[in-house]
Amino acid sequence: MAAGARRQLTQDVSPFQAIAVSRLAYELQAAGRSIIHMEFGQPSTGAPKRAIATAHAVLDSESMGYWESPELKARICRHYADTYGVDVTPGRLAITCGASPALVLALSCAFSPGDHVALARPGYVAYRGTLKTLNLVPLEIECGEETRYQLTAAQVAALDPAPAGLIIASPANPTGTILPEAELAAIVAVCAERNIRIISDEIYHGLSWGPRCASVLEHTADAFVINSFSKYFSMAGWRLGWIVSPDDMAERVAAYIGNMFLTAPSLSQHAGLVAMDCRDELEGHVETYRRNRELMLAALPALGLERIAPPDGAFYIYADISRFTDDSLEFCMQLLKDTGVATAPGVDFDPVNGHTHMRFSFAVSTPEVEDALARIAPWFKARA
Amino acid sequence: MAAGARRQLTQDVSPFQAIAVSRLAYELQAAGRSIIHMEFGQPSTGAPKRAIATAHAVLDSESMGYWESPELKARICRHYADTYGVDVTPGRLAITCGASPALVLALSCAFSPGDHVALARPGYVAYRGTLKTLNLVPLEIECGEETRYQLTAAQVAALDPAPAGLIIASPANPTGTILPEAELAAIVAVCAERNIRIISDEIYHGLSWGPRCASVLEHTADAFVINSFSKYFSMAGWRLGWIVSPDDMAERVAAYIGNMFLTAPSLSQHAGLVAMDCRDELEGHVETYRRNRELMLAALPALGLERIAPPDGAFYIYADISRFTDDSLEFCMQLLKDTGVATAPGVDFDPVNGHTHMRFSFAVSTPEVEDALARIAPWFKARA
Repeated sequence: MAAGARRQLTQDVSPFQAIAVSRLAYELQAAGRSIIHMEFGQPSTGAPKRAIATAHAVLDSESMGYWESPELKARICRHYADTYGVDVTPGRLAITCGASPALVLALSCAFSPGDHVALARPGYVAYRGTLKTLNLVPLEIECGEETRYQLTAAQVAALDPAPAGLIIASPANPTGTILPEAELAAIVAVCAERNIRIISDEIYHGLSWGPRCASVLEHTADAFVINSFSKYFSMAGWRLGWIVSPDDMAERVAAYIGNMFLTAPSLSQHAGLVAMDCRDELEGHVETYRRNRELMLAALPALGLERIAPPDGAFYIYADISRFTDDSLEFCMQLLKDTGVATAPGVDFDPVNGHTHMRFSFAVSTPEVEDALARIAPWFKARA
Repeated sequence: MAAGARRQLTQDVSPFQAIAVSRLAYELQAAGRSIIHMEFGQPSTGAPKRAIATAHAVLDSESMGYWESPELKARICRHYADTYGVDVTPGRLAITCGASPALVLALSCAFSPGDHVALARPGYVAYRGTLKTLNLVPLEIECGEETRYQLTAAQVAALDPAPAGLIIASPANPTGTILPEAELAAIVAVCAERNIRIISDEIYHGLSWGPRCASVLEHTADAFVINSFSKYFSMAGWRLGWIVSPDDMAERVAAYIGNMFLTAPSLSQHAGLVAMDCRDELEGHVETYRRNRELMLAALPALGLERIAPPDGAFYIYADISRFTDDSLEFCMQLLKDTGVATAPGVDFDPVNGHTHMRFSFAVSTPEVEDALARIAPWFKARA
C-alpha cells in the first residue's frame, strides 16, 4: 500500500528525453556515421593538463581512502573572496560528487515532504525531477521572452502562499540567460521578507558573454549555493562539486553528507585543486565557446531560428522552433538522422512550451560548430 | 514553519562519533605521534596495480565526460553469474558513486515518507541516518549474542504491523557476522509473505573467514542489492558502487539516478572494470586480513576482551567492553591518547548498548596489528 501511494506521488519522474537522442547518436556513430554531439551540457575538452599531471602523481603515491581535502576547501573559500568578495568559512563548505548530490543535500536539509519549491520554467530538467524524488512539490513559474526566461522579484512576491523554497539559476540552463544584478538583489529581498529559502545553482559561473555572473552570496549569506567542476573546469566525468550552506544549515549538511554520501572522489579533489589555478588553459576554452557562440548567433537567424533566448552565459542556445514543429523530440531525432547533429529537445526543460523549442550546446570545438552549421543549414532552409 | 517541523523530524541525524576519534588521531599524528588507524572501515592498501595502470592510460587518452560504462555493467552482471549463479540483466544494474547513494536510491525509490524500515541494532550508523534524512522511520531491532547480532526470520515475522522495508547486511558492520543461509532464506520467505521490501547490503562480500557470503538474489529477485568497490576491491576513495534493483523498480531507479546523481566517476569505472580481474592481488589483501584477524582473536581475550561478536566476515571485531566502561566514546578517545591506536566507539552502531562496545577495524597491515596489540595490551591489562 505504501509503495502504491509512492508510485502515484512520483510516477512522473522521468529520465531526460535528450538521452534518447544521445542513444541514437551513439548507435549511428557505432554504425559509422559522423556525429556532432550538441545534445548534452558538457565540454568536449578534458581536465587542464596540470590537473591531469597531478592525478598521475597521486595515482602512484597515495592509496586513496575516504577523504575530504582541506586544501581544496580552503581554495574554494578563497575563490569566493577573490571572485565575489564574499567571506565563506570552510565550515559552510562541503565537497560533493558533482552538483547533483549537492542539490539533493540542500533540498533534503532545508525542506519537508510536501513543501513547495518554486523555480523557473524552462529550467534544468533535474530540478523538477529531484524535487519529486524527495517528495517536494515543484512550483514551476512560466518564464518567457518578456522576463528573459528568468524569474523576477515581482513573480516571487506574487506567489500565494509563499513557497518554502526557490531555486534560481544564473546563467541558466537551457537558456543561458543571466539574472540582472538588481533583479537578483530584489529576489533576495523578497525571499528574506517572505522567509523563502534560496538555492542558487551557479554551475555555469565563469561562462559569461557580457553580464557579470554575480553570486547570490553577494546579496545574502542565507542561501545555499551549488557548483561543480563539470562546466568551466571541464571535468564533468570527475564528479566533483560543492555546496555552500547558510550558517544555520552547515552542521546539518555535514551530518547529512556523512550519512548519505561520504566523501567525493579523492583523485578528483587533488586534480580539482590544481585545476583552480589553471586559468590560462581554461580561459582558452572560454574563448572557444565565445567564438562558437558568435558563429551560431550569426548563422541561425538565416535558418529561421530568429527567436533565441538572450545567451548571456553558459554554452547553450535555446531556440523557438514553433514555425517548424510542435514535437521537439521528434524534430531533434529527425535532425539527428538527417544531418548527424545531436541536440536536446525543449520538452526536457519545459513540459508545457518545450514542444516548440530546442537547445544547442556549443561546448564543442569550433570546427565542429562550423561543420554542424553547414549540415543543418540546408535542412532548416528546406523547412522554413 | 515547515522548516521548524523538519528540524524536529531530523534533529537527531548525527555525524559519526568515530569522526571525532579520527580527527584527534590526525591531530596527534600531525604533532608527531605514531598513530595506528583502526577507526574506519577502509583498506589501507590502494587499488590493484593493473587498475592503476589503466587509470594512467585513460588519463592520457580520454576527456572523460558524463559516462556509464557498458563494459563495467556487463562485467558486474557476469560477477553475479560466476559468484552466485544468478542472472542479473544490465537493465537492473546501475553504477553509483559508492554504496551510499545506492542506498539513497533504493530507499527513495521504494518507500514513502513515514514508512517504517526495519534493521538490526547494532548496525552501520548510516542506515539509521540515511533513513531519517529521507523522512523514513528506522525500526531498530535489538540483536545480541543470542542471534549472533543478526536479525532472524522469527523477529521479522513478529513485527506488528509489518514494516514497509527491511535492511539486511551480511557480513555485517560492526560485527562481521554472516547470516546463516537457512536464516537468510527464511527471512526472504517472511518478507515475501508480508510484502516487505528487502535491501541487502553486500558491501563486505568477498571477505569471509568461514561461512559463504550468499547473495539475497540467490533466494529472490525481488530485492535491492547494494555493493561497492570500497572494501574487497580496496578502492574506497574512488567512489564507485552499484545497485541491483528488482524488475519492477529498475526503470524508476534509472530515472531517479539521472535526476539525483548523474553518472559515477569515469576514471573509477575504467579502473574498477580492470580491478574485477585482479583477484590474485586482492586475495593477497584477504590473506592479510585473515592473519590480522587470527592475531587479534588470539590476543584479545587475555586483555579482558572475551566477549566478541562472531567475526565471520568483513574486517571488524566488535567487542563488549562493559567491564571497562559505560562510555565507549570517552574510552576510545583515552585509548587513542594513551596508545596512539584509533578505534570506533560502539555508540555509532548502537545508541542503546553501544556505550559498552567498541569496534576494531583490522584492514591495516599485519605489522600494524602486531604493533597495536603490543601497545594496547598493557593499557587494557591495567584496567582489567
